Amino acid sequence: MSAQNRIPVGIIGASGYGGIQLVRLLLEHPLVDITYMGGSGSVGQNFADLYPHISHAVNLPIENIEPEEVADRAQVVFLSLPNGLASKIAPRLLAKGCKVLDLSADYRFTDLQVYESWYKETRTDGEVNSKAVYGLPEIYRDRIATANLVGCAGCYPTASLLALQPLLKQGLVDPSTIIIDAKSGTSGGGRQPKTNLLLAEADGSLGAYGIANHRHTPEIEQVCSDLAGQEVLVQFTPHLIPMIRGILSTVYAKLRDPGLVKDDILTIYKSFYRNSEWVQVLPKNIFPQTKWALGTNLCYLGVEVDPRTGRVIVVSAIDNLMKGQAAQAVQCMNIMMGWEESLALPKLTFYP
Amino acid sequence: MSAQNRIPVGIIGASGYGGIQLVRLLLEHPLVDITYMGGSGSVGQNFADLYPHISHAVNLPIENIEPEEVADRAQVVFLSLPNGLASKIAPRLLAKGCKVLDLSADYRFTDLQVYESWYKETRTDGEVNSKAVYGLPEIYRDRIATANLVGCAGCYPTASLLALQPLLKQGLVDPSTIIIDAKSGTSGGGRQPKTNLLLAEADGSLGAYGIANHRHTPEIEQVCSDLAGQEVLVQFTPHLIPMIRGILSTVYAKLRDPGLVKDDILTIYKSFYRNSEWVQVLPKNIFPQTKWALGTNLCYLGVEVDPRTGRVIVVSAIDNLMKGQAAQAVQCMNIMMGWEESLALPKLTFYP
Amino acid sequence: MSAQNRIPVGIIGASGYGGIQLVRLLLEHPLVDITYMGGSGSVGQNFADLYPHISHAVNLPIENIEPEEVADRAQVVFLSLPNGLASKIAPRLLAKGCKVLDLSADYRFTDLQVYESWYKETRTDGEVNSKAVYGLPEIYRDRIATANLVGCAGCYPTASLLALQPLLKQGLVDPSTIIIDAKSGTSGGGRQPKTNLLLAEADGSLGAYGIANHRHTPEIEQVCSDLAGQEVLVQFTPHLIPMIRGILSTVYAKLRDPGLVKDDILTIYKSFYRNSEWVQVLPKNIFPQTKWALGTNLCYLGVEVDPRTGRVIVVSAIDNLMKGQAAQAVQCMNIMMGWEESLALPKLTFYP
Amino acid sequence: MSAQNRIPVGIIGASGYGGIQLVRLLLEHPLVDITYMGGSGSVGQNFADLYPHISHAVNLPIENIEPEEVADRAQVVFLSLPNGLASKIAPRLLAKGCKVLDLSADYRFTDLQVYESWYKETRTDGEVNSKAVYGLPEIYRDRIATANLVGCAGCYPTASLLALQPLLKQGLVDPSTIIIDAKSGTSGGGRQPKTNLLLAEADGSLGAYGIANHRHTPEIEQVCSDLAGQEVLVQFTPHLIPMIRGILSTVYAKLRDPGLVKDDILTIYKSFYRNSEWVQVLPKNIFPQTKWALGTNLCYLGVEVDPRTGRVIVVSAIDNLMKGQAAQAVQCMNIMMGWEESLALPKLTFYP
Repeated sequence: MSAQNRIPVGIIGASGYGGIQLVRLLLEHPLVDITYMGGSGSVGQNFADLYPHISHAVNLPIENIEPEEVADRAQVVFLSLPNGLASKIAPRLLAKGCKVLDLSADYRFTDLQVYESWYKETRTDGEVNSKAVYGLPEIYRDRIATANLVGCAGCYPTASLLALQPLLKQGLVDPSTIIIDAKSGTSGGGRQPKTNLLLAEADGSLGAYGIANHRHTPEIEQVCSDLAGQEVLVQFTPHLIPMIRGILSTVYAKLRDPGLVKDDILTIYKSFYRNSEWVQVLPKNIFPQTKWALGTNLCYLGVEVDPRTGRVIVVSAIDNLMKGQAAQAVQCMNIMMGWEESLALPKLTFYP
Repeated sequence: MSAQNRIPVGIIGASGYGGIQLVRLLLEHPLVDITYMGGSGSVGQNFADLYPHISHAVNLPIENIEPEEVADRAQVVFLSLPNGLASKIAPRLLAKGCKVLDLSADYRFTDLQVYESWYKETRTDGEVNSKAVYGLPEIYRDRIATANLVGCAGCYPTASLLALQPLLKQGLVDPSTIIIDAKSGTSGGGRQPKTNLLLAEADGSLGAYGIANHRHTPEIEQVCSDLAGQEVLVQFTPHLIPMIRGILSTVYAKLRDPGLVKDDILTIYKSFYRNSEWVQVLPKNIFPQTKWALGTNLCYLGVEVDPRTGRVIVVSAIDNLMKGQAAQAVQCMNIMMGWEESLALPKLTFYP
Repeated sequence: MSAQNRIPVGIIGASGYGGIQLVRLLLEHPLVDITYMGGSGSVGQNFADLYPHISHAVNLPIENIEPEEVADRAQVVFLSLPNGLASKIAPRLLAKGCKVLDLSADYRFTDLQVYESWYKETRTDGEVNSKAVYGLPEIYRDRIATANLVGCAGCYPTASLLALQPLLKQGLVDPSTIIIDAKSGTSGGGRQPKTNLLLAEADGSLGAYGIANHRHTPEIEQVCSDLAGQEVLVQFTPHLIPMIRGILSTVYAKLRDPGLVKDDILTIYKSFYRNSEWVQVLPKNIFPQTKWALGTNLCYLGVEVDPRTGRVIVVSAIDNLMKGQAAQAVQCMNIMMGWEESLALPKLTFYP
Repeated sequence: MSAQNRIPVGIIGASGYGGIQLVRLLLEHPLVDITYMGGSGSVGQNFADLYPHISHAVNLPIENIEPEEVADRAQVVFLSLPNGLASKIAPRLLAKGCKVLDLSADYRFTDLQVYESWYKETRTDGEVNSKAVYGLPEIYRDRIATANLVGCAGCYPTASLLALQPLLKQGLVDPSTIIIDAKSGTSGGGRQPKTNLLLAEADGSLGAYGIANHRHTPEIEQVCSDLAGQEVLVQFTPHLIPMIRGILSTVYAKLRDPGLVKDDILTIYKSFYRNSEWVQVLPKNIFPQTKWALGTNLCYLGVEVDPRTGRVIVVSAIDNLMKGQAAQAVQCMNIMMGWEESLALPKLTFYP
């Protein structure tokens, strides 16, 4: 495709970590051109002032956010904003015919009351929301293909749901026993400076947070319930790890059939994800390191069964900013546009 | 007490991380003198050749391990050796009248068959083993006080058992629902160089290991069963974290009485550990960071109840080399010797 | 000395990293009681709200800063504030008879014009300033002993000056050839959140800053000139290292006498610091790691001579928050009060 | 070019960090196929047993090293072996018509006596060595283009020489005043486990090593002398930094003309590297972070002049395993083969 046939895309919220990943990925995408970058705090600065290392590859200013003007300049728009802002902007972009991919939580919930209750915000865009599709291709690929608005899956939900999907879809576990003990690098907290994210605070240490009340809980539960065909509550505990990128989810559940052994479950997982290029089920007795996924769109899964306790334990590793955020959004865009799903998605990290 | 009244103590296995902690702690202990340091690979070297930073404080060689000779020169002997070696040495030290504190797993099991099955070693010292006491003072203080042989608690078990004790002793949870998701710094793997412990491998990453088969499982189960008065199986999953020191244990269990709320459980914990100087139950909604415990003998506990799921979640933080190893051994020694329990035990980290 | 004879001390600026070190050190000091903690942003909070790990040891509020009131409640006052504030407060404390130790740059310069030029502040307390003594005991111990106001040495200057002192005092090097390439952990940037100090930004990376214009340059030059008896300009380049604490200074200079060899210089250093408990000159071919000094008041020095180039290279390691800040301030206090210089000063790190 | 026209390449020493980078880069190279991987310790294992994360992309065994057989299966061979081994193998590969790129030090020296003296090895392949070209394209591109044997530049030399080249070529500095203070992540030490490279040892700390005697010194001096047209001795001090990848070189030298200011030098650098795609001269007052270069073939340069001291300070950042090793080797191969120089060379990191 020649350059003039590339699709113009815009990024609103380009200056954060989600934004810089999108820029990085879209610069190497063969079918798009970045034509607009929007922000708030850094309007007027050049993107390369914020990220000098990228100055040889991009020369665009951070502009004000005027949705109609953005829509004039971009066919596809990525929103990478704090929760609560996308739902002010997306309807105006959609009205002008854009396809919209939102990286915040605004369009992840089918039931807006759940959103309002966990996010303490009032929403008035119910009709727009009702057309949004949850952006996790390995679960909702078909719906994404025809969507104009995708609420891209959260980082923890992506890692957790890919680990749980085969178990729930096939009814292998008792959903009331699901425990998700998740661990994330600090980039998930964003680039706005906060004391607890300082290297001096977060390095050399580890702690849990959001115990029993983290906002990704209802998001995980919504999809688990959909997969299981029954209402599911999960126990979800995130932890902050002294590293920049990566999420590891350690997922526990009781097997309904205590006769199932590790080889059975592994076979089920390998079969389930046989055609999923971005989910790698590891061989027996191999469990993932988060760094295996860094800079890629991959999710690695390791599976174990404990015959003593009758539990299955699945360990899932992703890059929180890639499969957990920006690369997954690009994957969704490829699907929405009818392109090859893997376009511009990295598949090999630089180890170590 | 004047210098000539200090007790002579020996350290067998002084060159590893357990050894250097013991040296560090015992150098500042007012009632002991280090009179012997033994090792294997580094015999003939001065301890300060291995750890130059300490040369201003200690000037002792690493000597061969001859138990009878050690017994002539030390009243109390710490064994900081790989599993399986202490049981060759301790009987000979005890026969010569020494008090012995073993930091390995050799003397932690009341049932040697359990040890033999999980550690793949044959043991012939059943009679000596039967007199060993499990070295976790907040659970077995009285027995430690009269013991000559203490098998000091493992690092993960210490963090996990202090978190579980009030629940199990008071029958508050269903023991079959216990899940322990534990995270440790890499110093737990020792100072012998291994590929997976290299900074280039372990930094910036996170993974689980020993899923469903880690050797600390039966150790935790033995004490849990003792506390609960019934046989308990636990789900225990350790993870390697990109930091040097510290363990965080996130412990899950179903409450038997779904009417119990967070304030109830917090009150129970505060009351339970009221007189335990080394266990700090944190205020409501505060959860520990591992770095709070670094360089101290403290265990910090944070407690949460999830009313949606009926689970209690306890988060426990220790320094794996201190409360999880060497400082706990010194605490046990203080108790065995009838001294003030807190002698030479650090209580305040240098934050951050 | 009985408790009622302890000296009351106050800390203004207790909530930052300098403050928490002071609190930690003074809590274990046998001759002082902390009677006052002052701050600005966190007034009204309890100190343990900011640092929950310390709640078992200290229960004091952060109070407003009213110098005269502070002076009523404390005989010795530590100021741990941003540059430019101490000079507003110290004169009022001194007028009321307090001894004052300032951890900022305000009282480090004999020539206030130098301060005003590098720190872009106007100063009107010239007379008070003229009585201030530079707080680096291994250089100015005698003057500190009789001072009421000490401007404690900066972190980089401490590491650099202790490395240079023997060379300059004995005229061994050409001062115009001095290059100081220094590396610091990020805690030197303080606890106020800043983007470049986030773990996500600073971890896994390394960069230089303040090249040719860092404010510690004139401070180092002032003392170098004093030691050399001639005006000295130095090349000073600091770097930010992905670690929390610690400074390493690599100092280069041309030897005036090309015949001097490593053994000569080592002998000179060992002799020079023979009676300096807190400066450890390492054996031949041993060079310090910053972690050797963590949590201690020590400075480790390693010395090399390159016969090919005629240069001496000295490597110096300290804990930037201890010998580079709070512990050195306590050392100065001990000297000012006529107490044993080493009171409450840690001498052994917990390795690793 | 169709798949059957790709050039077969072999990697001897595929299992180390240099090897995995080469594999990673060559898998995405459009004009080559990896047809052979050789090793020693891991012969018989599959490459994906060593690096499970890459199993979806490569399925090749580690084979014995039989040069003639390798030559039958590969037109281009990369040697990624410990120093001293390549010179046993390269002559046999060259005799069979292969092009050879060596990542070790064996073929970096024009004068074998220098090699023998610094590396303590005897060499008998003088004639082969005399035809080797030093593999740093920004200095020796033309010679590389016609070479059959390239001794790829070392990591520290690459960072240091790209910083120094404009100064030396244009005679702007006094070569006798050059000081290179370099800092490297620990992956430079390789994947063989060593105590000092353990996370528990190297994290949270910093130290110098090889002061006045590091083997990269003569390599830097050889090229500096060539650039300056006179014999140059440099002061080179490497440091080990608690991070995985990246080198920062801080280079100091006295300007011959004290009238030159920062803008002059910057202009010279920008002009000098105008056509060097892989060397990015940063804008005024911007200095590089090593992480900007991670996973790329880029070298970032920041330039400062200190008018007080008359020195120029250049800060250079690369990825030690990429521009400092494997990517530079691929760049050299592209040149040797007459291909577009930038083929398969990454140019954008994933920040942060």
